[in-house]
Amino acid sequence: MEIYKKPIGWLRGEGDFASVVVSTRVRLARNLSNYPFITSVTPQQAKEIDNYLVDKVSKLQLNMPFTVYRLHEMDDVDRRVLFERHLISSEHLNSKLNRSVAITENERVSIMINEEDHIRLQSLESSFNPKVAFEATNCIDDILSEVVSYAYDSKYGYVTCCPTNIGTGLRVSVMMHLPAIVYTKQIEKVIQSLTRVSYTIRGFYGEGTSPLGNFFQVSNQTTLGRSEQDIIEELVKVIPEIVRFETTWREKLSKDQGKNLENTIWRAYGVLKSARSITSEEALELLSAIRLGVNMKLIESVPLQVVNELFIMVQPGHLQKIYGQQMKEGTRDITRADLIREKLNKF
Amino acid sequence: MEIYKKPIGWLRGEGDFASVVVSTRVRLARNLSNYPFITSVTPQQAKEIDNYLVDKVSKLQLNMPFTVYRLHEMDDVDRRVLFERHLISSEHLNSKLNRSVAITENERVSIMINEEDHIRLQSLESSFNPKVAFEATNCIDDILSEVVSYAYDSKYGYVTCCPTNIGTGLRVSVMMHLPAIVYTKQIEKVIQSLTRVSYTIRGFYGEGTSPLGNFFQVSNQTTLGRSEQDIIEELVKVIPEIVRFETTWREKLSKDQGKNLENTIWRAYGVLKSARSITSEEALELLSAIRLGVNMKLIESVPLQVVNELFIMVQPGHLQKIYGQQMKEGTRDITRADLIREKLNKF
Repeated sequence: MEIYKKPIGWLRGEGDFASVVVSTRVRLARNLSNYPFITSVTPQQAKEIDNYLVDKVSKLQLNMPFTVYRLHEMDDVDRRVLFERHLISSEHLNSKLNRSVAITENERVSIMINEEDHIRLQSLESSFNPKVAFEATNCIDDILSEVVSYAYDSKYGYVTCCPTNIGTGLRVSVMMHLPAIVYTKQIEKVIQSLTRVSYTIRGFYGEGTSPLGNFFQVSNQTTLGRSEQDIIEELVKVIPEIVRFETTWREKLSKDQGKNLENTIWRAYGVLKSARSITSEEALELLSAIRLGVNMKLIESVPLQVVNELFIMVQPGHLQKIYGQQMKEGTRDITRADLIREKLNKF
Repeated sequence: MEIYKKPIGWLRGEGDFASVVVSTRVRLARNLSNYPFITSVTPQQAKEIDNYLVDKVSKLQLNMPFTVYRLHEMDDVDRRVLFERHLISSEHLNSKLNRSVAITENERVSIMINEEDHIRLQSLESSFNPKVAFEATNCIDDILSEVVSYAYDSKYGYVTCCPTNIGTGLRVSVMMHLPAIVYTKQIEKVIQSLTRVSYTIRGFYGEGTSPLGNFFQVSNQTTLGRSEQDIIEELVKVIPEIVRFETTWREKLSKDQGKNLENTIWRAYGVLKSARSITSEEALELLSAIRLGVNMKLIESVPLQVVNELFIMVQPGHLQKIYGQQMKEGTRDITRADLIREKLNKF
């Protein structure tokens, strides 16, 4: 599997609010009408669903065709690479059922088969771009709906495995980099405010993952009783508010504690350019500081895309693919440091 | 006072055991026969002694004449610069009496007037060089003894203020860099062994100072009943043993924990090349790691002399002279980081 070598389009660091919003992900949850939910299927049924949907998806007439990866036939490292690139979820990664993912060449659109729902259609865009991301999924959804029979209830809408997805089955997640909010210890306040208006805020790899490198995924919680447009319109109001909050605090930090902040950022840069061994956790923390430095124009030589991509490249799966071997943790720490030095010392 | 600008000869990092032994200091303690010890003098007597000895020292016929600094007429920062360059002691720095120091152009020889004794004659040499250092003081001592009357007892030898110096009045101090012994937690063992054979081991700035940057001053404790040659001959046996111990442990560390050690050293290098603020304590600790890296040929671009001199340059007195202003601690931390970056980024 060669996908680990490719630059990641949605991490290119361009577009609306790119200094705070890394990417926008839209996903639709769909299920087939003639099979039980994933929580109730037998392994044999899962196999049937997987084969059936892979066949249908492969035959879709699209400008950009899908490449299908049969996860149950792949080794752990390859599966992890897809997960690290946000092409499959943690649940999809760890499932024991037959399951697949179909991905377009540019990785903008992917379809997870046999995740929590039979079908999870997702689109990823750089920076804040919910409308374009929604259009991409919506378009595939329309085409797919002509060849498969979705479970749909005329009163509730799309029927999903988990009640929180019933209705549109639409979730929009925005990956935000909030170092100033974290640094000034206001993240709990932001989480509470978002929860009150029915948003959830999660870690770098979604549900149940921790907020590595000060990255947070903000997404709508409810899908029932609201149209796709309502959900997106509301997001277009809420996200820029968080962006403004983060930006204001970055400016305030820069004004009040400029020297301290500069010191933290440049030290992170120095360590990353020199270390011979680094854990994933520390790397993400220091990369977070560098990302802030690039966005505050302190570090001018390193492109935002390089920093954004490093967050993915330093993960265990990518590291093992790049260096072409299975590695234990200690060895990974050394190759991680090698990779970061190599990337940063180009600038 | 322009002395702060000069490179420091005895830090040039050349000579015997230079990777472990930074420098060798020899000092002779002498007192005038017609005045009480410093502990008993009146301020008026101290003034007389100071004027008398400054006059005598200034008139010595030498190839390299002395420059005299009247410490009681100088400001705190200038005095501190002399202290940081190891030209005066902590006690001399902080005394309230009239007192002076005479220094040769190359800073190899200095004479403290009204330190713990009326006269403290010292010589500093790069690396391990007790014989040459002793010759330098001995030669000046001979010339000086012709023009002033020393307190001398035919049974005990030179009479000094503190009984530990009675006899030859000779102390040889060797400044050693012992990072491997510290890192492997064997420094206490080394201190105990040295104490058993009547040596003392002190910090970077001598008596009562802490072992900054893994530097230790090893010196003979007793001077009574032994000739100058005995003292030096014994040192020539003891010091190489400590050097061997440190070197063996450096090799062992490099073999057993090479990657960890490399990581520590390169991280120190990265931080020093990037930080925008650094305390004196942290700077010395990281410089110590770099010094080890240079001596282990890990860091090949930076000359040992540059690292050795940075240990002195980053001290508050030198910093304030270099930047031409009195500075508070926070500002010093910033200029310290500036200076280190400037020096290291040349290589």
